[in-house]
Amino acid sequence: MSDVTPLETLGEFGLIRRLQNTVTLRQPSTTLGIGDDAAIITPAPDNNMVVSTDLLVEGVHFDLTFAPLKHVGYKAVAVNVSDIAAMNALPTQIVVGLAIGARYSVEAIEELYEGMRLACEAYNVDLVGGDTTASRGGLTISITAMGQVPNGQAVRRSGAQPNDLICVTGDLGGAFMGLQVLEREKQAFLADPDMQPELGNYGYVVQRQLRPEARMDIVHELKDLGITPTSMIDISDGLASELLHLCAASGAGARIFSENLPIANPTLEAASEFNLDPIMCMLNGGEDYELLFTVPLSDYDKLKHHPDITIIGNMMVKSEGANLVTKAGQPVPLQAQGFTHF
Amino acid sequence: MSDVTPLETLGEFGLIRRLQNTVTLRQPSTTLGIGDDAAIITPAPDNNMVVSTDLLVEGVHFDLTFAPLKHVGYKAVAVNVSDIAAMNALPTQIVVGLAIGARYSVEAIEELYEGMRLACEAYNVDLVGGDTTASRGGLTISITAMGQVPNGQAVRRSGAQPNDLICVTGDLGGAFMGLQVLEREKQAFLADPDMQPELGNYGYVVQRQLRPEARMDIVHELKDLGITPTSMIDISDGLASELLHLCAASGAGARIFSENLPIANPTLEAASEFNLDPIMCMLNGGEDYELLFTVPLSDYDKLKHHPDITIIGNMMVKSEGANLVTKAGQPVPLQAQGFTHF
Repeated sequence: MSDVTPLETLGEFGLIRRLQNTVTLRQPSTTLGIGDDAAIITPAPDNNMVVSTDLLVEGVHFDLTFAPLKHVGYKAVAVNVSDIAAMNALPTQIVVGLAIGARYSVEAIEELYEGMRLACEAYNVDLVGGDTTASRGGLTISITAMGQVPNGQAVRRSGAQPNDLICVTGDLGGAFMGLQVLEREKQAFLADPDMQPELGNYGYVVQRQLRPEARMDIVHELKDLGITPTSMIDISDGLASELLHLCAASGAGARIFSENLPIANPTLEAASEFNLDPIMCMLNGGEDYELLFTVPLSDYDKLKHHPDITIIGNMMVKSEGANLVTKAGQPVPLQAQGFTHF
Repeated sequence: MSDVTPLETLGEFGLIRRLQNTVTLRQPSTTLGIGDDAAIITPAPDNNMVVSTDLLVEGVHFDLTFAPLKHVGYKAVAVNVSDIAAMNALPTQIVVGLAIGARYSVEAIEELYEGMRLACEAYNVDLVGGDTTASRGGLTISITAMGQVPNGQAVRRSGAQPNDLICVTGDLGGAFMGLQVLEREKQAFLADPDMQPELGNYGYVVQRQLRPEARMDIVHELKDLGITPTSMIDISDGLASELLHLCAASGAGARIFSENLPIANPTLEAASEFNLDPIMCMLNGGEDYELLFTVPLSDYDKLKHHPDITIIGNMMVKSEGANLVTKAGQPVPLQAQGFTHF
């Protein structure tokens, strides 16, 4: 028996039915999932809904030469959940649109969905709707994520005040270095298809690139600590770009210290091997999906020893601009060099 | 001054800012629109949210040889609103994802957004979020629409009972005939680029194809008439396919009468010219975006003279199957021949 089933043998409705059977509903707010013209959601009383949408395009956001479809599916959900986390909300539902190129088999799409299913399980999110269609090109994944947060407790980009502490979760630059490693291995593979990829030392950075996690854990921890950030954003395009968004939305300036920026040892080693400046990797390398947020100075004691949150600087008045302070004490204006897809 | 601006001169953020400026917010439930990690929605108390997503792919769902981008934008919103209407809900917000091929200019995307803006105005919907990215191929449009309906008043596909009247809005087969006309003109144009398209007699069917409307008017009218359908679905894949969905979801059979099916004169004339059976056009031609719904027999008097709602048959017990009764009184089993994109 072959394990490659052409999509056309199932058709759109067959594919939807087959995938529908793998969906588990967990959220009490999900009143009706896949299978009607629309899903029905019953938001918790006195809660806001938050909603965010993201596209992942083959050849632009992911490269199937090195990204397993299961990871692509997981990441597609995780990056959307990350946007919900950045609002201080809990993710509740997603809907998924897939435009699928002719070379994909049913098994390939099931791999993709398996990754999505694992992410839904990890983040306690229900897949409640979707649309599946052919595409003339590669695979395009569209995900819209919804979440809930008690009325008035959503955290925007715009609430940062001068003197607020600037905090970042986890470590930075890893996803970018992972991409460098994968691109190099791809080139080596294209030159010599018999080569075996050497990812051994790069497990951490490759994982950061291929299977990032949304920091829902931090959203829960901040709640437990009684901390409501004054502003928050997730780091998809690089720290510099995101901090400039916070500054612009809040009408404020900022100062971060290069010595304080968190980097993992494997990232540092990879940057060194690739002759890349680790500071630049942290500032401008995208896709870490860590959270960048600000808190009042009075929260300092609650956060100063947190193992997974680093205080990297403080907000300033707008006229001070947004600067990186170097080890030598020199302020350097931050610039948004997050990669653009155009 | 050139009026063709390459997308890369603006970049993703520039494009989003430029489009953001054209957005008007109308819905009281929109607490925060475009510009943060997620939009914030405050649902009306005691309301369900409904949510639906659709992809429109260039070369699959639309052909820019004959579809102006403004119409494509309008239609992309309308078909999503149609799903919300089919739940008996009022549309409130949409989010839009665009994957844009390299040959598109800023002006082309603004045309597309202008069509979306017009549809948002027509349906009183807020565009509250989006994602814009490059694509290696053509244009892919992903829209997720949200709506609200008082708790428990959403109409599903599954509530039809034997003996319920089967109703359809407007007329059928027009969008399909419009597509035939446009395809013929395209072939003629490809054979002789100097030819002028002859759409004169086909204005109605072409409009049905290029710029369908969601039947929100019917949702309001049914409310005014005090009618809550027992089941409802919108006709995107053809009457036969949609009625079979209603039957399957409701565990019931159905009987519709070919003589009762509503067709507009221009559709009938076009079908005749193309030597197509008008009944087949109505049953299997997609994209009319009319509503198909069922009501209890007791609502007959309220609907029998409605100028835009036609009673086409009635639900049966499941064992009777789903049949079209011909003019000669002969039952013919309905088959789903709605076009599949795979």
